[in-house]
Amino acid sequence: MLKGKLITFEGIDGSGKSTQITLLSDYLLSLGYRVVLLREPGGTEIGERIRQILLDMRHDNMTAETELFLFEAARAQLTREVLIPALESGAWVISDRFSDSSVAYQGYGRGLSLEMIRSMNTWATAGVRPDLTILLELGDRARDQRLRKRHVEGEHDRLDIESERFKQRVCEGFREIASEEPTRVVVVESQGEKEDTAALIREEVKRLWQ
Amino acid sequence: MLKGKLITFEGIDGSGKSTQITLLSDYLLSLGYRVVLLREPGGTEIGERIRQILLDMRHDNMTAETELFLFEAARAQLTREVLIPALESGAWVISDRFSDSSVAYQGYGRGLSLEMIRSMNTWATAGVRPDLTILLELGDRARDQRLRKRHVEGEHDRLDIESERFKQRVCEGFREIASEEPTRVVVVESQGEKEDTAALIREEVKRLWQ
Repeated sequence: MLKGKLITFEGIDGSGKSTQITLLSDYLLSLGYRVVLLREPGGTEIGERIRQILLDMRHDNMTAETELFLFEAARAQLTREVLIPALESGAWVISDRFSDSSVAYQGYGRGLSLEMIRSMNTWATAGVRPDLTILLELGDRARDQRLRKRHVEGEHDRLDIESERFKQRVCEGFREIASEEPTRVVVVESQGEKEDTAALIREEVKRLWQ
Repeated sequence: MLKGKLITFEGIDGSGKSTQITLLSDYLLSLGYRVVLLREPGGTEIGERIRQILLDMRHDNMTAETELFLFEAARAQLTREVLIPALESGAWVISDRFSDSSVAYQGYGRGLSLEMIRSMNTWATAGVRPDLTILLELGDRARDQRLRKRHVEGEHDRLDIESERFKQRVCEGFREIASEEPTRVVVVESQGEKEDTAALIREEVKRLWQ
C-alpha cells in the first residue's frame, strides 16, 4: 500500500519547473507534510553516475536507443531505492521529470517507438504512476516572441534548426500526453508571475485531498 | 546488406571464452579474413563507462531492472557504433557475450521477464542476430568436482550459496536457449585440451561458408 502521493513536473527546459517545485514543496511543508524531492535522471548514487554519462555525451554520438535505456536504468533504480519506500512511508514525493519525459523526448522528439517506451516505463517504474502531473507550458505568445527574436537576429545553423524542431516535437508530445490523460496531467501556463502560477498548481494539488 | 558474419561466445565466467576467442581469431586471420573483436558490456567509449558502473556496483544495491537496462544501453551503442558498420564492411565479428547473456543472467538468473528481455534485445540490436553462437560448457564432471571441493572445505555463507544457485540457473538458461535454437547455438564442452576445443569450434565455423 502506497500511503503517500507522487506529483511530477514535466515540460521543456526553462518552463519554470524548479521554481514551481520549490514553491509547492514550501506549501506542502507548511501544511505539515513530509516532502521528498527527486530529479530525473539521478536521485541515487547509481542514477547520478548514469546522469553524468548522459550529460557528458550530450553532443556526441550517443544513439537514441542508448539514451532511452540509460534514462530507464536511472528510473528503475530511483523507483525501487527511493520512490517506493518514500510512498510507503506516507511522504509526498515531487519529481522533476518522470516517465512522461521519455515519451515526450525519446518518443515524440527522437522518433522511437511510443509503445516500446511505454512498456519500458511501466517496467522501470514497477507500475507506479503519478497521482498528479503538472505540465508547465510557456504559452504560445512567449514561444512566438522567442522564435521571432531568433529570426530577426539572422540565420541559424542546422543544429539550431534541428534543436528548435526537436523542442517543438517534444512540446507537441507533452500536449498529446495531457490530452490522453486529462485527469492525471494538468497543463499550467507559466509565462505570468510565478506566484500566480503557484496558486494555479496549488488548486490542482488540493484535488488530491478530495 | 550485412556482408560480414557475427559469431558470439556465451557461457559462465571461467568457461574458457577468452582463450577460445583468441584461437578462433588467429584461425580466421590466418585465412585472410578481417576480424573485429568485441566484448560486452563495453566496446565503445559510452559502453566502457556503463561497464564501470556495472562493475563498481557489483556487490551493491543495484536493482536487477537497472542492471538489465544498463546492459541494453551498452548493447544499443555497440550495435550501431561498431557492430553494424563492421558487418557492413564485410568483417568477421567475434563478440565475448551478446544478447543471449541477458536472457541467461537477467532472465533465468535473476528472474526478470524473458519476454521483456527478448523485446529489449531485439530493439537494442536493431534485429541483428548472431550467425553462430558458441556456448562453452565446462561439463558436468568439472562442475561436480568443483562443487564437491567446496562442500569438503566446509560451510559457505548465504552469498556463496546464492551465487552457486544463481550460476546453476544461468547455466540452465543457456542450455534452454541452445535447445530452442539448435541451428544457431552450438554447445561445445571445454573441459578438455584447449586445442581440442578449438578444433570443435572451427568445425562449427566452417558451416558458415557452406
